[in-house]
Amino acid sequence: MDELEIDAVAEVELDDPVLVEGLPGVGHVGKLAADHVLEECEAESTLVRRVYSREFPPQVTVEDGVADLTCAEVHAVENATPDGRDLLVLIGDHQAQSNAGHYVLADAFLDVAAEFGASEVYALGGIPTGELIDEYAVLGAVSDESMIDPLEEVGVEFREDEPAGGIVGVSGLLLGLGDRRGFQVSCLMGETSGYLVDPKSARAVLEVLEELLGLELDYGSLDDRADEMEDVIGKIQEMEQQRSMDVPSDDDLRYIG
Amino acid sequence: MDELEIDAVAEVELDDPVLVEGLPGVGHVGKLAADHVLEECEAESTLVRRVYSREFPPQVTVEDGVADLTCAEVHAVENATPDGRDLLVLIGDHQAQSNAGHYVLADAFLDVAAEFGASEVYALGGIPTGELIDEYAVLGAVSDESMIDPLEEVGVEFREDEPAGGIVGVSGLLLGLGDRRGFQVSCLMGETSGYLVDPKSARAVLEVLEELLGLELDYGSLDDRADEMEDVIGKIQEMEQQRSMDVPSDDDLRYIG
Amino acid sequence: MDELEIDAVAEVELDDPVLVEGLPGVGHVGKLAADHVLEECEAESTLVRRVYSREFPPQVTVEDGVADLTCAEVHAVENATPDGRDLLVLIGDHQAQSNAGHYVLADAFLDVAAEFGASEVYALGGIPTGELIDEYAVLGAVSDESMIDPLEEVGVEFREDEPAGGIVGVSGLLLGLGDRRGFQVSCLMGETSGYLVDPKSARAVLEVLEELLGLELDYGSLDDRADEMEDVIGKIQEMEQQRSMDVPSDDDLRYIG
Amino acid sequence: MDELEIDAVAEVELDDPVLVEGLPGVGHVGKLAADHVLEECEAESTLVRRVYSREFPPQVTVEDGVADLTCAEVHAVENATPDGRDLLVLIGDHQAQSNAGHYVLADAFLDVAAEFGASEVYALGGIPTGELIDEYAVLGAVSDESMIDPLEEVGVEFREDEPAGGIVGVSGLLLGLGDRRGFQVSCLMGETSGYLVDPKSARAVLEVLEELLGLELDYGSLDDRADEMEDVIGKIQEMEQQRSMDVPSDDDLRYIG
Repeated sequence: MDELEIDAVAEVELDDPVLVEGLPGVGHVGKLAADHVLEECEAESTLVRRVYSREFPPQVTVEDGVADLTCAEVHAVENATPDGRDLLVLIGDHQAQSNAGHYVLADAFLDVAAEFGASEVYALGGIPTGELIDEYAVLGAVSDESMIDPLEEVGVEFREDEPAGGIVGVSGLLLGLGDRRGFQVSCLMGETSGYLVDPKSARAVLEVLEELLGLELDYGSLDDRADEMEDVIGKIQEMEQQRSMDVPSDDDLRYIG
Repeated sequence: MDELEIDAVAEVELDDPVLVEGLPGVGHVGKLAADHVLEECEAESTLVRRVYSREFPPQVTVEDGVADLTCAEVHAVENATPDGRDLLVLIGDHQAQSNAGHYVLADAFLDVAAEFGASEVYALGGIPTGELIDEYAVLGAVSDESMIDPLEEVGVEFREDEPAGGIVGVSGLLLGLGDRRGFQVSCLMGETSGYLVDPKSARAVLEVLEELLGLELDYGSLDDRADEMEDVIGKIQEMEQQRSMDVPSDDDLRYIG
Repeated sequence: MDELEIDAVAEVELDDPVLVEGLPGVGHVGKLAADHVLEECEAESTLVRRVYSREFPPQVTVEDGVADLTCAEVHAVENATPDGRDLLVLIGDHQAQSNAGHYVLADAFLDVAAEFGASEVYALGGIPTGELIDEYAVLGAVSDESMIDPLEEVGVEFREDEPAGGIVGVSGLLLGLGDRRGFQVSCLMGETSGYLVDPKSARAVLEVLEELLGLELDYGSLDDRADEMEDVIGKIQEMEQQRSMDVPSDDDLRYIG
Repeated sequence: MDELEIDAVAEVELDDPVLVEGLPGVGHVGKLAADHVLEECEAESTLVRRVYSREFPPQVTVEDGVADLTCAEVHAVENATPDGRDLLVLIGDHQAQSNAGHYVLADAFLDVAAEFGASEVYALGGIPTGELIDEYAVLGAVSDESMIDPLEEVGVEFREDEPAGGIVGVSGLLLGLGDRRGFQVSCLMGETSGYLVDPKSARAVLEVLEELLGLELDYGSLDDRADEMEDVIGKIQEMEQQRSMDVPSDDDLRYIG
């Protein structure tokens, strides 16, 4: 295995496709979102590239007894929108395992994007709020100032002090390296608690993407996952209340250690 | 020392040998198993390759005052089975010390396998149950779907959610990289608590291997080690009971921190 | 992204410029100081180089919604002093993320310095005292013995056991590698508690630099920051006193966990 | 700075010199020993090589205000013994900072040894006992079996289960890589608690070296350091006794947290 090995699984002619990235991160928001786009577009999509690398964790996932080496996948989606917009959807289960590795992989993803003639990139992710929320704003960061207005028009928020600490990992590097290589990159970050895999945040991000690209998505399966998440949150909150209702006596309090 | 240095210690003509890998991992199951195969086949085996690497820990083991640099060894076993099956047995005391290092070493092991004309690989290891067990199932993962039935026929179990988290390290990469390089790779994982070096789990795995390859192994020394392990477990359980028999009073219970 | 990518943003003819380095470190003293020099010299300064590297953290900062890839910047300042001394000011938000990375980046900075004909380097930083202080001494370390007297003359202190443990990171390597490459390097370290970003320590260091180079700097904005810091320290001290004045009763003491 | 940079500081013709290595390790035994040999042989010694590397920590030490980049030094000692034996003494303040780095540096040291025609190597170090000791045995490990007897004859002990876990770092790799490169390597390890820098252990190791090489060393300065160490140990033991004599009252027990 070299530092990088990109398998050309299939070739598809795309016309000015948009790269949509959804690797795992905060709340798995980006991953849920990109996986969902692919699920919705299954009919028109073709796996075109698999990216393997020493920079990925040294492991295989096992499904139905068969092992798969860690990789990132790029799927081509022809005519994803009524407008006929093509997509390249980048998904996977892992990010790079070292600092330099993030640079190596982000460059590889941009190489694939360039190979297919893409110049527009949407990096999807989450931004942690630290607490459970009811409203899901979608925050933005872009590679060039001129890209802010179109995003604000569809409801993306640009807040002055966020994201504090910048954007780390593949989404950040698609912005940073993408800009240096001539791409127009937007990062869409759904607010999320940061404690759970968050399908509601993923939905908020996808609704923005629908506006921007003219996509039309169903949310059935994502909503099912959101209901499951609500159940889990509900149970956790019940347990919390139960704990606070067991008021300890003075005797008990001495021993809390 | 380069990234990799493979010493050709001896040359042996093998006919379609099977690579059996047993580097240290969960419960040292794979290591115990592979070491045992070699012990049983000592008469017919020849050390053919030593693999040194910067990716191994920077240390020597000392035996009888003499130092040996960390390496993995490959032993050729001619006519290991009544059928005349040849084996390449890969053993060692360490795995790679970095993520990229696992890729480097797994590729090196496959290089050696290819050099000797092997196309079949058995990666032996353990899968942790988190508790002491009486029955030792052997779980499987393969590089290709077609390999499942033959394994199930000899009692290997393929369970839907296991191994959760996939397979990390050399066994996983032999599966993943081996598949990319045209090898047929099976990983046999003996259930084990994960707390102890487990000769019983190693035996369970070897019994499967015997079926698959037509090997005939004695288990005397492995059973001796199993008895030692039973003694250790017995002592631990005694100590646990002793502790629980010192029944603390309500007063004491409050201090359990 | 290669190990190193240096963007030539602009070209400026400099005459025997002095490289002033202020990357983040103890108390952010060096960073505050270098950022302040640049602020004061804004009229005469030009961004000439951006240094990108896999050795920097894999992230972007976001300002006004626009992302910037982690880098170090070199600004050329012509006629920074009444004497007509030119400066190269090196600033940034991060140091290297690995041991080897520090060597790579320090060499890159010296390459830029050499490219512009610099032979004199001032690495600015802080030296932690472990406690809040009122007097801010500036300690020194140099690449060659002959450089000690001129520094002592302007008040730099050379103490026998300091810095204990040497100087780690870019300032240390500018000294060490700079010496090997024929540069004259001085490291000026302002005493600082080590707990806070310290504008007073930065000012102490800059006052020495003013003497050495003939710079004339205003300290308005730095003093404002110092006042903010005094407020913060004041509040912390109040809280400390409050805590010690709430003498807990015997009952309360039982609950201290 | 390349991965490795070896400065030829001076050239000295040596006749079959012995390489003596004393980099920091357990109890700093090897370092104290090698530094002491050099101190005793100052008149006949010449600094011949400085080894710099990205694999060393990115720092400088500061002495009398002047900075020195981390490096290892090799000193040539002509006619170190009445017999006229030449030595190459390898000293330094740091080992490599990464696993692969240890391999790189150990190879570099052997390169220097080979350059000067050395074929015999003594790696000096400590082996931790975990407790303070009165008797200081010197344990051994060698690259070849034939080297055991001569060492046993001068009192070096070869114990069956020691060192448990092998020998890690430069001493281990001089043994392991040295053997592969045709050197005769002995590792002499003085027993030491592991808690303190141990001049007594260093002396025990040097007494063995004296026997082996015909060296004649004075121990004045080393004994002074040993006395200092005894004082420190004495004080620690006093404090321990003091603590056990202050039996806490019930009141006090409540506050132990």
